[in-house]
Amino acid sequence: MASTRRQTTLSNIGEFQLIRSVAKSETRPCSEIILGIGDDGAILQIPPKRHLVASTDLLIEHIHFNTRSATFFEIGYKAAVANFSDMAAMGAKPTALLVSVAFPAGRTFQDWQELYRGLSAPCKSHNVRIVGGDTSSSHSDSFLSITVLGTVEQGCALHRSGALKGHVLYVSGTLGDSSAGLDFLSNRKRNARARASLTHSQRYLVQRHFHPSPRITLGACLGSRHWASAAIDISDGLSNDLGHLCKQSRVGAIIFSENLPLSPSLKQYAVRKKTDPLRWALHGGEDYELLFTVPPQYTKKVEHIAQRVSVPITKIGLITSSRSGIRLQNSEGTVMPLPSGGYDHFYL
Amino acid sequence: MASTRRQTTLSNIGEFQLIRSVAKSETRPCSEIILGIGDDGAILQIPPKRHLVASTDLLIEHIHFNTRSATFFEIGYKAAVANFSDMAAMGAKPTALLVSVAFPAGRTFQDWQELYRGLSAPCKSHNVRIVGGDTSSSHSDSFLSITVLGTVEQGCALHRSGALKGHVLYVSGTLGDSSAGLDFLSNRKRNARARASLTHSQRYLVQRHFHPSPRITLGACLGSRHWASAAIDISDGLSNDLGHLCKQSRVGAIIFSENLPLSPSLKQYAVRKKTDPLRWALHGGEDYELLFTVPPQYTKKVEHIAQRVSVPITKIGLITSSRSGIRLQNSEGTVMPLPSGGYDHFYL
Repeated sequence: MASTRRQTTLSNIGEFQLIRSVAKSETRPCSEIILGIGDDGAILQIPPKRHLVASTDLLIEHIHFNTRSATFFEIGYKAAVANFSDMAAMGAKPTALLVSVAFPAGRTFQDWQELYRGLSAPCKSHNVRIVGGDTSSSHSDSFLSITVLGTVEQGCALHRSGALKGHVLYVSGTLGDSSAGLDFLSNRKRNARARASLTHSQRYLVQRHFHPSPRITLGACLGSRHWASAAIDISDGLSNDLGHLCKQSRVGAIIFSENLPLSPSLKQYAVRKKTDPLRWALHGGEDYELLFTVPPQYTKKVEHIAQRVSVPITKIGLITSSRSGIRLQNSEGTVMPLPSGGYDHFYL
Repeated sequence: MASTRRQTTLSNIGEFQLIRSVAKSETRPCSEIILGIGDDGAILQIPPKRHLVASTDLLIEHIHFNTRSATFFEIGYKAAVANFSDMAAMGAKPTALLVSVAFPAGRTFQDWQELYRGLSAPCKSHNVRIVGGDTSSSHSDSFLSITVLGTVEQGCALHRSGALKGHVLYVSGTLGDSSAGLDFLSNRKRNARARASLTHSQRYLVQRHFHPSPRITLGACLGSRHWASAAIDISDGLSNDLGHLCKQSRVGAIIFSENLPLSPSLKQYAVRKKTDPLRWALHGGEDYELLFTVPPQYTKKVEHIAQRVSVPITKIGLITSSRSGIRLQNSEGTVMPLPSGGYDHFYL
């Protein structure tokens, strides 16, 4: 039911007032931010002996999100975390966000505030500030573009390209939860009552879909100690992102399906849906877990440090020669090629 | 007439191949770029004693551009320059761009290549590299989001907020050309024949609309010598951007209409259109000229340096107390308030 409360549309507010409303909320002191929102550019101090790391993400209504199943808070929250996850995959620490938003004229100031509340929540947790952005109207769909700026100790960045034959493949957390959460949501309308009636498993999967955990500390530990030979975050699905890592490292890989870390909630949901949970674990996107490779002599150290920073990690396979391609060994020992099954925005 | 040549659509190409096609063209060596396109983030080295400056712009089809009057080359070219102009207004030197593009599925690979050719042309002139980005499909409109990263000597950035009563207001280049060019284009279809039949004046205005000159060297000179007390680039129109500068400096200003630098082409076009060219000079957007204030004791030095870097600059007014607001003195000496007449994306 639509709210009967009078809603302020963005055309009542104007672009510059919107920017001021964000600037006002971004007043926490931070030694690395010399100048935030309000001029022609933001100014940042990059600490000595560190490099700047920059990454950007585009989120478009009806392609990456829809307001039928997600609130603007959830959309903003996930958008920020997806960017932090790119920093984690580089071994970097995020410092600042630039946020551009285009809303169709009918969207309300409340929608805008919700989006910024969502973006700001993980920013506050990770001491990241919104230092700039742009706003515009759009014709019909909402559009969100985020650039994250972070820093990494010089020479300590993680890359996709360093994996070698014999290195061990690890993944953080559990796989497939986000896409199972999306699967659950895709046939539901967003409203508080529907959410309230969720089972524990359903709520967990939806929570993982909207509030993934960026593995920043783990990424930084792996990078600064030079223990990981390659890393990528899983945004497009394990099969796809492993494909990128292998392509850039010019290697192959074998994944042991029995080792894939599946949450109890995913397993329960799969039983209920009469489907194989591996489908989500192998090909589902947006888990924002780290996939990384470790030379055998460092595996014990890596497992120890992961435990120290309280991030569960799991050995899921091995790097092989590029000739063998990317393969999956199932629980019966059968080995088969693992095709990339992730999402390509132009193959719809 | 539509080309009969077979066009490759983006869905035939796929997102990752598009990214690779950009990465391949960005191979010029640059000491500040440690890692470009192809990983989870780009890595940049910020030279010692310099700060990072970052800014972002959003460009949306039917709001900021349309393919009826502009080619994708022109759209890309102007988008890059608009971002360089933000760097100029900070006294900074642009280093790298992150470019995100969403195209509806029907757009061709040729459109994409044209856009990147347009973005790349001013990048090559100013030694800027495209180091990252994102791609997506969209439902109907094309979206372009650009983040520019640059550097400025520590303590030498230009700000909007330093103007004081008695400081002299300068503007670079000429005003109103871009919006007059847009006015001319707005009722024309884009095709080579229509362009070929343009008069010299019309061609000049259209050229200024699509190929503005970012005043990077002038901005850097003003910043490094501490001769400008405040600066902004004119993207939303003189009246609007002067409003921002005055608001942030907590001052007023008076503009002398007789001093406003108008190109002969603008004057000719205004005669033909039976309109006052000041309309475009005062309120027209996208000139990407620098508007800056100079304490009286530095005006001679500033005029000298502008001549040395071959950028024409003109005294157009004076900073006054905030009580007087922003005013215009016309050729008869009459003084009137100058309302902001620029563009607000949510007031359509």
